[in-house]
Amino acid sequence: MMLTFTYVVQGFIERCAMMVGARPHHARSLAEVLVEADSRGHYSHGLNRMDMYVKDIQAGICAVNGEPVVDKENAATALVNGNNLLGPVVANFCMNLAIRKAREAGIGWVVAHGSNHFGIAGYYAMKALKENMIGMSFTNTSPLVVPTRGKERTLGTNPLSVAAPGKDGDSFVLDTATSAVALGKVELNERRGDKIPDGWGCDPQGHLTTDPKRVLSGGGLVPVGGSEATGGYKGYGLGMMVEVFCGILAGAHYSKYIRTWKVTDRVADLGQCFVAINPENFASGFNERMSDLLSIQRHQNPADPHSPVLAAGDPERVNIKKCEEMGGIPYHINIIKYINDYAKQIGVDKQLPCDKLVSV
Amino acid sequence: MMLTFTYVVQGFIERCAMMVGARPHHARSLAEVLVEADSRGHYSHGLNRMDMYVKDIQAGICAVNGEPVVDKENAATALVNGNNLLGPVVANFCMNLAIRKAREAGIGWVVAHGSNHFGIAGYYAMKALKENMIGMSFTNTSPLVVPTRGKERTLGTNPLSVAAPGKDGDSFVLDTATSAVALGKVELNERRGDKIPDGWGCDPQGHLTTDPKRVLSGGGLVPVGGSEATGGYKGYGLGMMVEVFCGILAGAHYSKYIRTWKVTDRVADLGQCFVAINPENFASGFNERMSDLLSIQRHQNPADPHSPVLAAGDPERVNIKKCEEMGGIPYHINIIKYINDYAKQIGVDKQLPCDKLVSV
Repeated sequence: MMLTFTYVVQGFIERCAMMVGARPHHARSLAEVLVEADSRGHYSHGLNRMDMYVKDIQAGICAVNGEPVVDKENAATALVNGNNLLGPVVANFCMNLAIRKAREAGIGWVVAHGSNHFGIAGYYAMKALKENMIGMSFTNTSPLVVPTRGKERTLGTNPLSVAAPGKDGDSFVLDTATSAVALGKVELNERRGDKIPDGWGCDPQGHLTTDPKRVLSGGGLVPVGGSEATGGYKGYGLGMMVEVFCGILAGAHYSKYIRTWKVTDRVADLGQCFVAINPENFASGFNERMSDLLSIQRHQNPADPHSPVLAAGDPERVNIKKCEEMGGIPYHINIIKYINDYAKQIGVDKQLPCDKLVSV
Repeated sequence: MMLTFTYVVQGFIERCAMMVGARPHHARSLAEVLVEADSRGHYSHGLNRMDMYVKDIQAGICAVNGEPVVDKENAATALVNGNNLLGPVVANFCMNLAIRKAREAGIGWVVAHGSNHFGIAGYYAMKALKENMIGMSFTNTSPLVVPTRGKERTLGTNPLSVAAPGKDGDSFVLDTATSAVALGKVELNERRGDKIPDGWGCDPQGHLTTDPKRVLSGGGLVPVGGSEATGGYKGYGLGMMVEVFCGILAGAHYSKYIRTWKVTDRVADLGQCFVAINPENFASGFNERMSDLLSIQRHQNPADPHSPVLAAGDPERVNIKKCEEMGGIPYHINIIKYINDYAKQIGVDKQLPCDKLVSV
C-alpha cells in the first residue's frame, strides 16, 4: 500500500473538481467527504469514486453555479432544492440547517430534491455529534436491489445513517445500506473467482444465487435479511422506508426512475433526508446512558474470544486511528494509478504522490 | 377455527381488564390494539397475550390510576412520563400528541418513559394515516437478541413501524422487529419438531443453530441479516438505533436492564418513541408518489408467477378483508379455551363465545 498524506489527497481532489469548473468551496466539500470515507476504511466511497463526481460536472449533468435554496420551511422542517449541485454541497447545507432547527425546536427534519450522490451517509449524520445531537441521513440511489419475491431492480441500496453521542467523544455511528451488501463486494468476489454467501444477491429469475456473475449480469442485490424465510422482506421494507423519506417526501426521482449507475445522460435528481435531534429536549443524562449501552455490548463475552463484540462505528474508529498514527491514508497502488491517469486526462498536472510505502 | 365477532372479543378483553381494576377507557385502549393485531393476523400480539397485561395489573406492576403526563415539551417534541400505565394508554397519548404537533410544526417527535408493552407497533404508526401523515413508532423490549459476535442477550427484538399514506386509502405499513424473527416462530418450530432456518437464532455459545431447542435454552434470537457474513451486524445496528430512540432518549430502562419476559416482580419502565410527519410541509403530491412506488413493486414480474410481489402491509390487508367478510376473527380453539380458563380464574363470568365454526 502507498501512504499519502491526508491533506495532499484533499488538495488533489479539490484541484480535480476545480479543473472542470467546481467552485473552490464546493470542491472542498467534495474532497472532505471522500477523504473521510477513505480514512474510515470505506475505499469504495472515497478517492476511488472521485471520477464519477467529476465526470458529472464535465458532462454538465451536475451544476457548479448557485447554492441550494429553501423551498419551504418552518421551525422544525424544511424542503430544500439542491439545484442539481454536488451531493456533498446539498447535504452539508441540509444537515447544517437541520442542526440549526434542532437547536431551537428540538428537532430538524430537512429533505432535499435535486441532489446528487453525497458519498458516505455517515459523514452528515456525524456532523450532529459535534453539537452533542443525534444525527441521521438517508439517500435514495440508483436501482440495484430486487424486492422480495420480485425479479426487477426497483430499489436502490438506499443507505441510512444514525449517529448518537456518548461520553468523552465516544459515539454510536450506524452507516449502512439496506441491501445485504454493497455491489462492490459482489464485484470483488467475482474478480477473485470466489462464490458469494447465500443471501447477498439473486439471478435474473429472482432466485438467490451464490454465483456473483449471475448477480452482476441481469440479477441484483437482495435486501438485508436475504430470502423471505430469513427476513429479507424486512430489509425490503427498510429500503422502502428510506425511499419514502427521500424521493417520495422530497418530490425527487425515486425507485426505477433514478438513472442507472454511471449513466451521465440525464440528471440524478436524488432525494435525501437529514435529521438532527437535540437530546436536551428529552431526558437528561443521554450521553451517560449512550456510553453505557455501548459498554454493555462491547464488554460482553464474545462467541470467539479473539473477536470482541463491536458497536456500530468501531471498525471505522480503528481505521481512523491507524491513519492518524501513519500520518496519512494507505491506498492500493492501483487506485493511485487509476486516479492519476484520470487526473491527467482532465488536465491536472500535479499528480497524487505516494509519500511512503506501507504494509497494513 | 372458531369465528368470534370482533365487538364480542373487544368487549371480553375490556371486561377482563376492568375486572382487575383497569379504568373503562384504559381497558378499551388495550382491547382495541389486541383486536387490531388479531384482525391483521398477528395472533401472537392479540387476545393470546391478553393475560400478560392483566397479570401485570393484578400484580400491581402496572398502574391503573392516573394518566400519562408531559414532562417537557416544545412545538415539535415532548418527553412523556407514562406513569407506569398500560402500554396502549401511554402509546395512544404520545401518538396523539405527536400528530397534534405535526399539524402545527410539520413534525412531532415524542418519547415516553415509564411505559409497558404496547402490542403491535403498527397500530400507533397507522393512527397518522387518518390525518394523511407519516407515522412511526418504536419500542424497546425484554432482552432476547444476541448481538453479532456476542453470546449474551443484550437487546430486545426492538420493533419499529413506519406507515405512509398513498391515494384512496392505500398505504405502506412496515411493522417489523429488528430481529430476524419473533421468538414465537422459534417456539412454534420447536413444538412441531421442525428445524429452524439458519439465520434465526444462536446457541448458548453464540453460534448460529438450526435447532430451536438450543435457541430457547440459553441461546437467543439473532438480528435480521443472520450471520456477520450475511449482514447480521446491520440488523444489530438497527436494534441499537431503536434502543437509542427509546430507552436512551427517554431515560427509561434499556438493554439488559429491562426485566426478562414474563417476570412480574418489577416494573417494565419501557422506553418508546412516536413520530408524526406532515407531508404538507414538504413537496406536494406525496400521496400520488407513494401510491406509484407501491405500484412499481406490486406490479413487477414476480420470480414465482403464483406469488406476487407485496408491499409492507399487504398481507395484513388481506387478513382484515377476510375478517370483514366473515364478520369476525377466526381463532384456534386452543386460544379460546386458554383465554376462557384465564378469565374464569380472575372471576369473569361471561365467557368468550365461539359464534361460528369456520375453516380458513
